[in-house]
Formats: sequence, C-alpha cells, structure tokens
Amino acid sequence: MALPLTVEKTTTGREYKVKDLNQADFGRLEIELAEVEMPGLMACRAEFGPAQPFKGARITGSLHMTIQTAVLIETLTALGAEVRWCSCNIFSTQDHAAAAIARDSAAVFAWKGETLQEYWWCTERALDWGPGGGPDLIVDDGGDATLLIHEGVKAEEIYEKTGQLPDPSSTDNAEFQIVLTIIRDGLKSDPKRYHKMKDRLVGVSEETTTGVKRLYQMQGNGTLLFPAINVNDSVTKSKFDNLYGCRHSLPDGLMRATDVMIAGKVAVVCGYGDVGKGCAAALKQAGARVIVTEIDPICALQALMEGIPVLTLEDVVAEADIFVTTTGNKDIIMVDHMRKMKNNAIVCNIGHFDNEIDMQGLETYPGVKRITIKPQTDRWVFPETNVGIIVLAEGRLMNLGCATGHPSFVMSCSFTNQVIAQLELWKEKATGKYEKKVYVLPKHLDEKVAALHLGKLGAKLTKLTKDQADYISVPVEGPYKPAHYRY
Amino acid sequence: MALPLTVEKTTTGREYKVKDLNQADFGRLEIELAEVEMPGLMACRAEFGPAQPFKGARITGSLHMTIQTAVLIETLTALGAEVRWCSCNIFSTQDHAAAAIARDSAAVFAWKGETLQEYWWCTERALDWGPGGGPDLIVDDGGDATLLIHEGVKAEEIYEKTGQLPDPSSTDNAEFQIVLTIIRDGLKSDPKRYHKMKDRLVGVSEETTTGVKRLYQMQGNGTLLFPAINVNDSVTKSKFDNLYGCRHSLPDGLMRATDVMIAGKVAVVCGYGDVGKGCAAALKQAGARVIVTEIDPICALQALMEGIPVLTLEDVVAEADIFVTTTGNKDIIMVDHMRKMKNNAIVCNIGHFDNEIDMQGLETYPGVKRITIKPQTDRWVFPETNVGIIVLAEGRLMNLGCATGHPSFVMSCSFTNQVIAQLELWKEKATGKYEKKVYVLPKHLDEKVAALHLGKLGAKLTKLTKDQADYISVPVEGPYKPAHYRY
Amino acid sequence: MALPLTVEKTTTGREYKVKDLNQADFGRLEIELAEVEMPGLMACRAEFGPAQPFKGARITGSLHMTIQTAVLIETLTALGAEVRWCSCNIFSTQDHAAAAIARDSAAVFAWKGETLQEYWWCTERALDWGPGGGPDLIVDDGGDATLLIHEGVKAEEIYEKTGQLPDPSSTDNAEFQIVLTIIRDGLKSDPKRYHKMKDRLVGVSEETTTGVKRLYQMQGNGTLLFPAINVNDSVTKSKFDNLYGCRHSLPDGLMRATDVMIAGKVAVVCGYGDVGKGCAAALKQAGARVIVTEIDPICALQALMEGIPVLTLEDVVAEADIFVTTTGNKDIIMVDHMRKMKNNAIVCNIGHFDNEIDMQGLETYPGVKRITIKPQTDRWVFPETNVGIIVLAEGRLMNLGCATGHPSFVMSCSFTNQVIAQLELWKEKATGKYEKKVYVLPKHLDEKVAALHLGKLGAKLTKLTKDQADYISVPVEGPYKPAHYRY
Amino acid sequence: MALPLTVEKTTTGREYKVKDLNQADFGRLEIELAEVEMPGLMACRAEFGPAQPFKGARITGSLHMTIQTAVLIETLTALGAEVRWCSCNIFSTQDHAAAAIARDSAAVFAWKGETLQEYWWCTERALDWGPGGGPDLIVDDGGDATLLIHEGVKAEEIYEKTGQLPDPSSTDNAEFQIVLTIIRDGLKSDPKRYHKMKDRLVGVSEETTTGVKRLYQMQGNGTLLFPAINVNDSVTKSKFDNLYGCRHSLPDGLMRATDVMIAGKVAVVCGYGDVGKGCAAALKQAGARVIVTEIDPICALQALMEGIPVLTLEDVVAEADIFVTTTGNKDIIMVDHMRKMKNNAIVCNIGHFDNEIDMQGLETYPGVKRITIKPQTDRWVFPETNVGIIVLAEGRLMNLGCATGHPSFVMSCSFTNQVIAQLELWKEKATGKYEKKVYVLPKHLDEKVAALHLGKLGAKLTKLTKDQADYISVPVEGPYKPAHYRY
Repeated sequence: MALPLTVEKTTTGREYKVKDLNQADFGRLEIELAEVEMPGLMACRAEFGPAQPFKGARITGSLHMTIQTAVLIETLTALGAEVRWCSCNIFSTQDHAAAAIARDSAAVFAWKGETLQEYWWCTERALDWGPGGGPDLIVDDGGDATLLIHEGVKAEEIYEKTGQLPDPSSTDNAEFQIVLTIIRDGLKSDPKRYHKMKDRLVGVSEETTTGVKRLYQMQGNGTLLFPAINVNDSVTKSKFDNLYGCRHSLPDGLMRATDVMIAGKVAVVCGYGDVGKGCAAALKQAGARVIVTEIDPICALQALMEGIPVLTLEDVVAEADIFVTTTGNKDIIMVDHMRKMKNNAIVCNIGHFDNEIDMQGLETYPGVKRITIKPQTDRWVFPETNVGIIVLAEGRLMNLGCATGHPSFVMSCSFTNQVIAQLELWKEKATGKYEKKVYVLPKHLDEKVAALHLGKLGAKLTKLTKDQADYISVPVEGPYKPAHYRY
Repeated sequence: MALPLTVEKTTTGREYKVKDLNQADFGRLEIELAEVEMPGLMACRAEFGPAQPFKGARITGSLHMTIQTAVLIETLTALGAEVRWCSCNIFSTQDHAAAAIARDSAAVFAWKGETLQEYWWCTERALDWGPGGGPDLIVDDGGDATLLIHEGVKAEEIYEKTGQLPDPSSTDNAEFQIVLTIIRDGLKSDPKRYHKMKDRLVGVSEETTTGVKRLYQMQGNGTLLFPAINVNDSVTKSKFDNLYGCRHSLPDGLMRATDVMIAGKVAVVCGYGDVGKGCAAALKQAGARVIVTEIDPICALQALMEGIPVLTLEDVVAEADIFVTTTGNKDIIMVDHMRKMKNNAIVCNIGHFDNEIDMQGLETYPGVKRITIKPQTDRWVFPETNVGIIVLAEGRLMNLGCATGHPSFVMSCSFTNQVIAQLELWKEKATGKYEKKVYVLPKHLDEKVAALHLGKLGAKLTKLTKDQADYISVPVEGPYKPAHYRY
Repeated sequence: MALPLTVEKTTTGREYKVKDLNQADFGRLEIELAEVEMPGLMACRAEFGPAQPFKGARITGSLHMTIQTAVLIETLTALGAEVRWCSCNIFSTQDHAAAAIARDSAAVFAWKGETLQEYWWCTERALDWGPGGGPDLIVDDGGDATLLIHEGVKAEEIYEKTGQLPDPSSTDNAEFQIVLTIIRDGLKSDPKRYHKMKDRLVGVSEETTTGVKRLYQMQGNGTLLFPAINVNDSVTKSKFDNLYGCRHSLPDGLMRATDVMIAGKVAVVCGYGDVGKGCAAALKQAGARVIVTEIDPICALQALMEGIPVLTLEDVVAEADIFVTTTGNKDIIMVDHMRKMKNNAIVCNIGHFDNEIDMQGLETYPGVKRITIKPQTDRWVFPETNVGIIVLAEGRLMNLGCATGHPSFVMSCSFTNQVIAQLELWKEKATGKYEKKVYVLPKHLDEKVAALHLGKLGAKLTKLTKDQADYISVPVEGPYKPAHYRY
Repeated sequence: MALPLTVEKTTTGREYKVKDLNQADFGRLEIELAEVEMPGLMACRAEFGPAQPFKGARITGSLHMTIQTAVLIETLTALGAEVRWCSCNIFSTQDHAAAAIARDSAAVFAWKGETLQEYWWCTERALDWGPGGGPDLIVDDGGDATLLIHEGVKAEEIYEKTGQLPDPSSTDNAEFQIVLTIIRDGLKSDPKRYHKMKDRLVGVSEETTTGVKRLYQMQGNGTLLFPAINVNDSVTKSKFDNLYGCRHSLPDGLMRATDVMIAGKVAVVCGYGDVGKGCAAALKQAGARVIVTEIDPICALQALMEGIPVLTLEDVVAEADIFVTTTGNKDIIMVDHMRKMKNNAIVCNIGHFDNEIDMQGLETYPGVKRITIKPQTDRWVFPETNVGIIVLAEGRLMNLGCATGHPSFVMSCSFTNQVIAQLELWKEKATGKYEKKVYVLPKHLDEKVAALHLGKLGAKLTKLTKDQADYISVPVEGPYKPAHYRY
C-alpha cells in the first residue's frame, strides 16, 4: 500500500485516522442531540450497561461513520466492548462524528471523500486488532469487512496449496484490484492473517440488503465462514430504515445538492421495494409526478394502486427531470440513457453501489466534460449535444453523500437490532446455537425494538386480555404475528 | 330445521333459493361490467377454459354472493366445474348477482338479510350434493363450510361411539346452537353424512384471515381433515384485497349508510394490520383525524410513522366521531365504550365477525332503544343519557352490509388466487402432494396473478438481463423475491 | 301545460307534489341526523328563532330538494317564513326528504327523475303564491327561478307593446321551448303575472357559480330586476362546498353508480377550479392517476404544483378510464371524444348543466345503443366499434343524481350563508341599502359562518391581544383579512 | 456609523461589500443552474431584452441576496438597468451568489450573518447612488428600504421645522435605534438627502405580506410618498411562493439545521395562511402529526377540513416536538411558552420578523444558557429545569437562515411579477397612471406569469372556442376569472 497514510494516536494511545480531530466538540454536541432521538439505543444502555455483557469483546464495524453510528458505537462501548470502526462508503462519513468518536470512544478510520484505496486501507485498519488476530464480532453494512476476510482466507488457501499470490491484474474491476493488492501485501507479511481472523470470529451482523444477499449466496455455496445475523430483514429495520429513512433522506439529499424545486417535476424511481416505496412517497408528496420502473409484477401492482404509473426507463428517459435508482441491482441507468436525458436532469442512486448508475460508462464517454458545481454535485456535459446532466455523489448513496443519511430516530430502530444481534452472537458464542448460516432475529425481539421506540412518540399500546389472546392464539405478551406476516 | 324454506328449481332443474329471480337481467348487466374489471379471472378463462380442467369436479363455495363472486363462479364453470354456492355473511349477498347466477350458472342459496338460521340452512344446502356425498372442492371465506364439516364429523364420531346426539343447549352461543341443531338433525337421517363429505373432499381454499387462523389452529391440533390452501396470505390477496379493497369500501360503506362528512371528523381505527392500514389511509385522505389502537408495537410504530397517533380506546372514546374495528379479534368495542360515546357516533366493523363489536351487550342493554334509520343503519339510544350511537350492518362487515364490498379489480386478484388454488388442489388430487396441512401458493404463481392485472392499468414491466438476474441471483423470469419478503 | 300533473294537499291544506308521502318518516329520521351535522343552521334557529324575523315573509326556493335542504327549509320556517320549494335539477331530489318537508313544513314540488316539462311545472308552482303575486324572497341555485321571472317580464313587455306572444318554436333549445310555453300560457291568463312577482320581490340569494354568472351578466346588461346576494362567493361557500363537498361526493357518486375501483385508474378532470380541485384531490387520494385539462394558466400551474399533469382532452381521451367535467362551461366532452374512449370508460359531470357533456350529440348519434344498467347509469354503445361508455346521471350533476349530494356538514356552511343573506335582504327591504345589483356578504358574516362550525369539530381559536391586533391593523374580533384575501 | 466597514471596488470600479469574491465562480455555476429553473425570468430577457426598456434606470433592491435573486438582478440588468442591492435579512444572503453578482453585474452589499448595524449599513449603501440622489425604482421585500426613506423624510421635515435631530435613545427597540442613528448621521451631512431620494423615486414594488401591510397602513394614513405595486398579492406570488415555496423550504431548513426525523413527531404550525398551509402540508406529508393555531375561523375551518386539529398554543405546548410560526404577527411564541416545552423541542419562524418568537424574552431570561450547535442552530437551556430547546436562525426566517430559501422555480413566478411591476412603473413614470397608492398587477399579467412557467413542466393548455368564451363571458385569450376569484 503506497499511500502516505499514517495511523495517528490519541493522548490515551488509541489509533485513529480522521479528517480533523478539532471537530470533536461539534460532533459531541450533535451526538448528544441524537441520543434524545435514539430511545432504543439509550434503553439498551440502561438495560444492559450495568452487566457489561461485551466485557472483553472486540467489535469491528464497517458502517457509515455518522452521528447516528456514533451513538451505536458508544452503546457498544457502554456495554463493555472495545471497538474499531471504518465507514462502508467513501462519502458517508460525517467528519465531526468521526472526530468525536476517535477522541472519546473508539478507534476510527474514516473521513468524507476517501479514495477507493483509502477506503480499503481504512477497512483493513478496522479489522487489524494487532498480533492477537482480528475482531470477535463484526457489524457490517454491505458486507465489505466480511468480503475482505472471505477473500483473504481464499487467497491464503490457494497460496498455501500453490504458493501463488493473488494477482490484481487478473480482474478489470478497479475496486477488486485494490482488494487483491491488500490481501497480497498482507500475505507477504503473514500468510495466516485472515485464517486467524476467521478462527477468532464469533459472527457478523449485517445491516443491509446488499450485504445480506452476499451472505445468502455464501450460505448457498457453502462458503460462509462464520455465523451471520441478518439484521436487514428485521421488520423494524427493513420496513422502517429502508422505507421511512429514505422517505426522509432522499428529498434532503436532493435539496442540499441541487436546491431544485421538486413540485411539478417528473421523477423516475427505478425499483419499488422498500427503498423505492419511500422515495416514491417522498417525491409524490413533494408534488412531483412519479413514475416507477419495476421487474417484479407484485411491486409494480403496488405502485399502480398508489396512483403511480409503471413504465420502462426507455419510455420516459427523455421527459423526466429526476432519476433515482433503488434497485440493489447493477446497470440500471446506462450512459446511453443519460445521453438522451433533458438538460440538467438529475441522476442519483440511493439503493446500492455506484454501479446502479453506469458511472464507468459516463466517465469514459468520449469527450464528456465534468463540471463540479460543489462536492458531490457534478454536471456532466455530453459533447454532441452540449446537454448536461447532474449526477449526485458520483453515483454512490446520495442521501449519505449529499445529506447526512437517515435521521436518528429511524436509525435507532436499525441499530437497536444491531446491538441485540451482537449481544445474541456474543452470548451464544460457546453454545453452538449459531452455525455457519444466516439467521434473522426472532419476532419477539423485533417487537421489543419497536416497543422501545413508542414512548418517545407518545404512543400507548392496547393490552390483550387473556381471553382475547387465546381467541387469536397468541401469548398476551406477544409475539403477535406469524413469521410470514408482511406488515 | 323448522323454517318454511323450500328449495326452488330453474327450468333446467337446477336448485336455488334467492330473493328474486327477476333481478337476473340487472345482475347480468353488472356481471358484464365486472368482467372488464377482472382481467385475472378472464385470463384464466382464456388460458384454461379450452382444456376444461374442472370437468367432473363439484365445487361448493361459501363466500359473499356478490357480482364479483359471480364472475369467479362463472370462471369455475367455464373451466368445467359444477358449482353450488352460499354467502358467508347474512348481509353480503347482492340479490341481483345471486339471481343471475342462479338462473344462468350455478346452484345458489343466498339473499341479503338472512337470519342466522337461514344462513346455516343455505350453507348446508350448498354442501349437499345429494346422495353421492358432498363437494370435491370447497372455496371458503371465514371457514364456515369447513367448520360445519369438521363439527359434523366430530359429532358423528361421538354419536358412533356413545350414541349421543349434539345438544344445542350445551352452548350459549346462539349461532353455534344453530350449527349443532343442523348437525343433530342431519345425524338422525344419515349418521355418516359428514364422513362421506370428508372422504370425498380433495381440499379447501380459504379466502380470509379469520378462516386461515382456524385452519392453522386445526393443523396445530392435528384435527384438520383435508388439505387447505391459504389464499389469504398470497401477497396478491392480503396486500391488495385487505389493504386497497378496504381503502375503497370503508368510505363507500360510511357514505352510503350515513352520508356523513368524513372531513373534519375524529376517526378511531382499531387495529393497524392490512385492513386497518387501508381504512386509516382512506379516512385520513378524506380529511379525518385518525387515531389507531394497536396491541402490536411494530404495527403501532408503522402508524406513528404515517403521522397517526396510537392511543387506547379508553383515551378517545368520548371524543371520536367514527369507530371502525379491523382487528380480527373479539370484544374490541364493548357496550361500556358505546355508552360513553358522543351523540351519533358511528360504530362499525370491517374486520371479522360481529363480535368485534359487543352487539350482544348492546342488544341486551337495559332500556336501550333501537331506531332503524334504514336497513343496516340503526341508531341505538341509551336510556340514561338519551344519547344515541349509529351502528352499521348490525356489527357485521359494513362494506358488504352497507355497500357492495370490494371493487371488482381488487377482487380479481384475490379470486384469481382462488382459481389457481382450486386448480392446483384438483390437479394434485391423486398425487399426495398436499397432505392435511395448510399451504400457501408458491411465489411464482403469486407473481403471475399480479402480472395478469398489469395490462389493464397500462403498466409495462422492465425485463432483467441475464447478467442482472445472475447478479442478484434470481431467474430472469422470476420469482424475484425470497419467501420472507414483505412487500 | 298538457301534463296530467295535479297539485295535492296535506290535511292542513298545504299544497305539494312529491313521489310518495309515505317516505316522510324515513325522511324525518335522516333530517334529525342531519341536524346534528349542521351546526350553523341550528345556531341560526337558536339565535334568531325567538324574534321570528321572517314573520310574514314568503320564500320560494329552487334548490336540490335533499335532506340538507330540508334542514335549511325548516330553519327558514323556524324563523317565521312561509316557504314553497322546488328542486333545481331533475335528478337531485331525495324523495324521503321531499315527503317529510311536504308533510311537516312547506309546500314542495319535487321528485327524483322529473322530465324537463315536470321540472318547469314544479318551478312555476313554487313561484305561484296565488292571486297576491309571487314570493318576497327567492333562494335560487343555478338561477332558474330568477330566469323564469326575467323571461316572463320580458315577454309581458313585448306582449304589452306588440301583442305578440312568446313563440316556443323560435328556439331549438328544447328546454327553453318549455320555458317559453309556460310563459305564453301564463300570459294568456294574466298578462301582468311576472310583473307582479317582480314588484313584490325583495331579492334573491343565489347559491352557485352558474347562477352567479347569469346575475353578473344581467347586472352588466342593466337587466337585473331586483337585488341579488351572491352566496356562492362567500369563502365559506365556494371554498368549502365546492371544494370539500365535491371531494366527498364525487367518489361517492362514482362508487354508488359503478362500484369501479378508482385505484390504478387514469382519471381526467376537466377544469381545476374549486370543484375540479376537490375532484382531483379525491381521485388522487383514492389511488388514481389524475390528469387535468385547463384553460387558465394559473389554475394549470396549481395543478402542476400538486403533481398533476395538465394536458388537453385530445391527448388523453383514448387512455383514460374516468372523465369528470367541472368547468361550468359547455361543450367540454363531445360525442366525438366519446367515440374514441376505451370500453367502459366512465363519463360524468359535477360542474354545471348537462351541456358540459354533449348529451345531445350522444343521444342523436346514428345507431348508438343505450343500455340502462340502473337508473342514472347508462352504457352507450357505438355501432362502429361496439365499444361502450358509461354515462352517469344522463350528464347532469352526478353527485346528486347517483349519490346524495354534498354531506350535511359542508352544506351547513353554504346554507348558513343563505339564511344570513335572506335575513339581510329582508331586514333591509325598505332601506334601499340594496339596489338592483349583485352583492357578496361582508367578511365578518363570512367569518361568523365559519365560527359557527368550529365547535362541532372540537376546535379552539386563538384570541388576538389588542396589541397584536393593532400590530396587524385588524379589530380584535375581526374581520381578520382584507377583501381580496384568497384563503 | 462607527463600524470599520469599507466599500470595496471591482476592477471596473463598481462598489461592493461581500464575504468573499473568490466564491464568484461557484456562484456563477449555481446561477446557471437556476436560470434553467426560472423560465419566467429568462422569457422576460428574451421578450424585453432587445428593447432595453430600463436604459437609464437606477434600481435599488433590498431582497434576500440568493442565487434566485441573482437571476432577477441579471434580468434587470439585461433589460438595461443599473442595480445596487442589499439583503433584507441578516442571515439570508448566499455568499457565492453575492460574490458572482458583485463581480459580474451589480453593486452588492450583503453577506450571511450580518449584525443589525451591518444590515442597515448595507441598506443605506444600496440606496446611495451618489450625489445625484437615490434610485429611480425600488424592489423591496419587507419594506426596509421603503421604511428608511419614509423615516428619513420624516426626520428631515422635523429637523427643518425644529432643528431637532432624531434621538436613538427615544426608542427601546434596538433595531429602530440603529435606523435613527443612520438618519441622524445622514442629516448632519445632507439635510435633504431623503427628500432628494423621494423626489427622484418613481415607485416601489413590494415582495411580501409584511411589507405590503406597511404600505397599506401608509396609504391609509396618507403618508405614502410614492406609488407602490403590491407584488405579494399577485396570485402567482402569494399562492405559489408563500404556499409551495414554504412547503419545500420548511422541511429543507429543518433537516439541514437539525437532521431530526419529522415522521412521528407532533408539529405545531402557528397560523394557517398561505405560508402556514404550505408548512402544514409539508409536515403532514413527512409523517408528522400537525396541529394548527389560528385566530381566523375561516382558516381554522380549512385546517379542520384537511384533518388538522385547531387548538391553542397553550393546549399543546408541552407535548409538541416542533413549533413553526407563520403568522406575520408578533408575540406568538413567548419565553413563557418555551419554558414549558419538551427537551429539544424545535422552535422556528418562517413567517415574518424574529418577533414572532419572543427572542428578546429568551435572550434576557435569567440564567438561560445558549449552546450553539452550529451557526443558526442554538440550544437554549433553562436553568430551573436544565431542559433545552432548539431555536433556528435566531428566530428569523429559518428557510433562509438554515437552508437556501425557496427553490428557483417558484421564485421565478414571484420575480417575474417583480420584473413586470418594475417595467410597468418605469413605463408609466411620466403618465400619472400611478398615484401615491398601492396597486396590484392586472389579472392578465398575473395569468401571463403563470403561462410562462407551464412549458418547463410539459403542460398543455386547452383553448376556449369563441362560443365557449362567450358562454362564460370572458375573452378567448383571458383574463379568465373575476378579480375576486380565490383560486
């Protein structure tokens, strides 16, 4: 790794690499505001803090280093854990949050606007707990920390068998070249590095759809190296963070990046899953005419029932003003689509990696001109037509790149699931309860997460009588729904 | 059965009992309109009709005898089935629909405003295929046809063992007394009647939550006598009919029954499941201030995210103008609540049986006065206060009692699932594929149902490339989502 | 007038002509319900009733004879007036309301489904107070009572000068032929009949846009014969009844007439004034994709800001499912449009006379076939294509023809304005305050009407301090807004 | 004026005072984006630019110096005007916009975060065109430029008569002390300074409600010194900018300032005029439970019809999470209210001056502690309870202080009215058409402004036929509505 990156240390000797430690006070003020909005996490501190259940546990996190994540990290440390952290997106770090955590609570390697090389350097730093191996637990988002270990183990096995080092030039995926370089360089100094990590690891809890998909693929292939809890599919995560979080943060990102009036515009939302539903709702409510593209007839019919037409991108590419990808797939908006768009059409992604939008095709388009309006807001002008489109956050998650991600309250739901998942993995580390498979949290814990968030909003639940509970065959205290219930 | 009820016969000899056969022409006109709105059922006729897959099958249905159901029945007969039908609710029959079907297509025993005795007489008639036993297949809604057979078999077993007849006076549930009377009287003439039915039966497809709950209870108890397909939990049923159907038919029922202005009113929706979500959305959009009551913290948090407060009924009983029960449970609005309501508060149920509202408590309240404004709209005046409340459809499903139920398009989704479920049961009747358990339809069929409804609404789906499909690990042609996906 | 129409008399000798006096009890029950929903009218009874300000006043009303109007009529009689009434639309009478009023309170000439000849016969009856001339005051809706007097006076003047009688064959407008016939026949028996009416008349209060437009035209021409109060343009009328009333009653009419699912459909609303805004809001909220047609760029821009595209009828005629006219103009949907519509497209009018839709063109289209599904719901099939469209209420106001019109609460706002306007005219009958011009009610009365409706909805107003009132230069007690304020 | 403020000059000799001229390139990029969103202004440039109608005109503007205003300024200069500009709010300047205009187009005196002294220094600079007197025309927002001239003239008259100078200590309004100081200091150097301004002035066009109120007061008092056009009450201003602008920029400001999740919160909107309607709509759509406070029963009833309860601030002060003032009045949220609020309740103003919120009471509250989270976001902690509230933009317009104000498209409507108003005043400067009164623009110009914005949104208007136009008595080309029409 040829970067001139050096790990710094706090006065207490904890490692970090952030943009500016002087922003710690500002970060602390915002963390304190966020705590009031994150009742689930604060309740975890109150309930579990005294027993210090994470005493002795090393937790590595790879998850957007925002103010909300700061409250998560300090919940983990309040329960006794030692923590190292990196972001899972080059643009998503809030530098004041990183500064406050680095100064006060955990080893942080993250800043807004990392290069891809810097990004993976940070990931590696977060996983490196020194000679004694890696973390006990991983909090992952998108699965990059998990990926690095799995790729590392694979390479070490090949190396052991064949003496062959990973070859970055074997792929033309620029990011994967970096991953292979890191592993190769690691192999040279310690050929069992990732095996040691794998052996120590109790498990991972994964935050998002993309990472979960990877986990199920590995489970399917039989290549998953440790237990995983799928936090994404807790109801209180996927039906809240994905839906209500994006409903909040999509317009926030659009407004901060472009100040464009949403009312009156035609907006295309690619994908009508939970994220797409949140985005479409937000745009519609702001006065846009929304059009959805979908592959799944059921989701398509849901859009129609809400008064949203379902068309193909080709049908509308020349007429729409705003394009948002939410699919979790790749190759959704290609450069050939972008060439046909109206002047100053806005193109952004809130779904998955930057390959939802064909950034590579755009960047390599002959003669294309990039005009940076401000960071994360670029106008790309096509030479033939002199027509420009506005791409947000370089095709990466626009709500994190252009705004501050999801608001604290909804992240409290997601992150309370994370804390509960980590507690569960750690508690059962020796029992064999969790095999090398992917698990979801049981419904009573899901309901508990929700319950922890009701008081803040002044809600009062109705109590079932025993007689009523029997009538519908549920326990008085829940869980109230069968596993397949869709909410 | 002491009722002066007699079966009538059409000129072709088919049995029926309806309000007025002269309404058949009117029914036929409305059936023809509905066919245009039910593309899924019409597609089934086109796809399966020529092969006559139901040739030789006897189907008994117990499901609201409406115009939409008429299109379902004529889809079944178009596929070769012979059909007998009753309604599953004393108020839900549309008499012109019943007349048209009775005249043209199937044996119908149903009219709007049956007594409970008449209701069960109709159910028994629909199940009675003559000496050769009962139906091959049942389409059930709420599970009353299924219940009658199960109770019949149980009674026959006791009778065989002990010689003891069912004793109606053993229960103080008025309706169950009628059920026991019917079984008792049947036993006298044929002590194996329900056993014969059970033996012939290939299976049942169940329409709604309440019936599904009963089926899972029987599966749990090991008492389920034949295979069952849970149509309710197809996504294209529960997330469409329950949600969008009620969003349409709740205000329809309110307006037809009371003409009350919804805007400005305070409306309490008890329960925020799919039905409650649809009702709350409709009321909110019409300008009411909606309050939800819930037992489940997850559903409660969903309501809050939509800006709907969650309180207990006690908190709001004295201030609200409209009360709607959607819980699927019993004892939700008790007479003691009703006594505290404002003058002319409207109380209605769109969830389940009339025991969501304490009708028995109301009817037996000392000195209470019932003023029938018009059929299904009663004002009940409490003697102490001279304050009256307005109860719709005598506490039964108000959208069917006071309006015409769900609109054709959304019922087309539900009923296409029914047709597919019936086809599946019949096709596999000899293969042993279905045991005495409860099944849901596979996702690809669920997606197919949705797909059949897109064209009518002018939608165009996007096609995955092979490369994209591989990237997210799904077949190009679907199914696109894991089983646990919540939509 | 060759009709076999005869005036009937109650036992007390009051004249009437209604469908069925036996429906009076049912009407009375619904009137009692409506009273609870009409706090403004009930407050007028409480405030003004004791002084009997209308003692000796004869009031003729020409306004939809509904339950709500019954409460208006009985408010007028409670204040001392003698009243004769007809409906202003051949389909809008609710027969039970007419029966209750005829039996209990006033002379009524109205039934649902009048022919045009019957309609004008009723209008004439309502204006005929016997030998002593006509009414003192008119409550008009659409201006037909006012029109008849103006045309009558005009004809009498011509007759006096030239001896020439009106010639019905001089016009090819079928309805105007009837008007001329009535006047001609009246002239023969009393050549000063309408002059006597005019001389007695203190003034008219007009309910709706269409009638107001006529009044301003007459004021402009200098032909207005008596003072008029424009109730339509009270804020508490036009911004409530037109907007929120239609938001309620458009979907009500659609659902009662067709049971069609609104969600998913494409709906075209012609005109985006107050009525159009209410209709578009209702359709959008029910899940339709709404398209607006407009002539006025400001209203068009308002639609766009709400996410509603503005196109021409030609652009969308072949794709839409529902068409609603709200313009107050004529010739909006022509038979040539109708021929291009989809099968079972729904066409209806909630704006103005039946000439918003080219009913004449449709009825006289060669080979067109009319299939009456039920009263007010007709399917018209074009011979070339065998494609049919569904026309509601024969092109007349569909919310009155197919449902029950606006709900009580919003009509209480409108009708409280009517009572106040009538009181004002009567009080000032001798002062010369009102000339032969069109007036609107002063803002403080408009605010009073609103204030009378707040308590029922549990609202609490904030009170200005004197200091604050001075700061914004308004009286503490209002009025709070300048005349040009748009709300 | 003792401030160390010095006017700077560009290389071409134009005066300015901005934060950082180096931001001009960034400003220019954003101005170019905004031009695409401001079709009305660009159409004015195309239509009027060639004739240079403002040749020789000096225009002074006192209006938020944002990107949108930059497009307005450059439209005025494109039409031939010379321009000097200041902001009308200490926080509303966008420094990159000011830099670009200062460098390229006009004399600008504005930066974000002025002190009150700096603010009035800027206003005076913008009015000072050197020895030859003041501007020919004023574009005003809130009326501060107009106020300064009126107060100046008044002081000069007193001085001439009595020799008495204005005494800043005669008022305890801190801001007015500054105004008097400026006038006093000016009087010393030129006792006819403001008279010369007044004499030269052709007129003012005023942007907003607050300024318009002042103008009507002066018209009422007979003290208005020059003609004024009330731009605020153009439909295309007040019903667009106030309503849709705030619907956009309120949540934008909330999110940028606090990142708080709006869904689930209780939000109080004080005032339900156009601004309040926009705010309430935005909050409701984002999932908040909105409560409105109102003094006007008509506006209150409108809120109720949208499902929004109307209560007093006292009723809800302890339960709400977000408070927004929109009244245009003073003393709405007092320190005594703030003391009773929940911890971290958010208090902000989007209506009028900072005196809607009792900032003075808050600042002088004994022991209160102010913690600045970031600029424009302060947490004020009360000593008794240690509970803090979050006040945005120091009580001034939060959408300008915490975000970037209204988006370009809606400002294009407002500012096109400004250009048309300025053109009208200038064209009629010698004709006497405009007296010393307040005027609104005629409806056909209002409609024209709207029409200029339809194309950008893809709208197509319907054309009246001559026959239809006659039927409703309007010209084919408009205007289409009477003056009193409310939209």
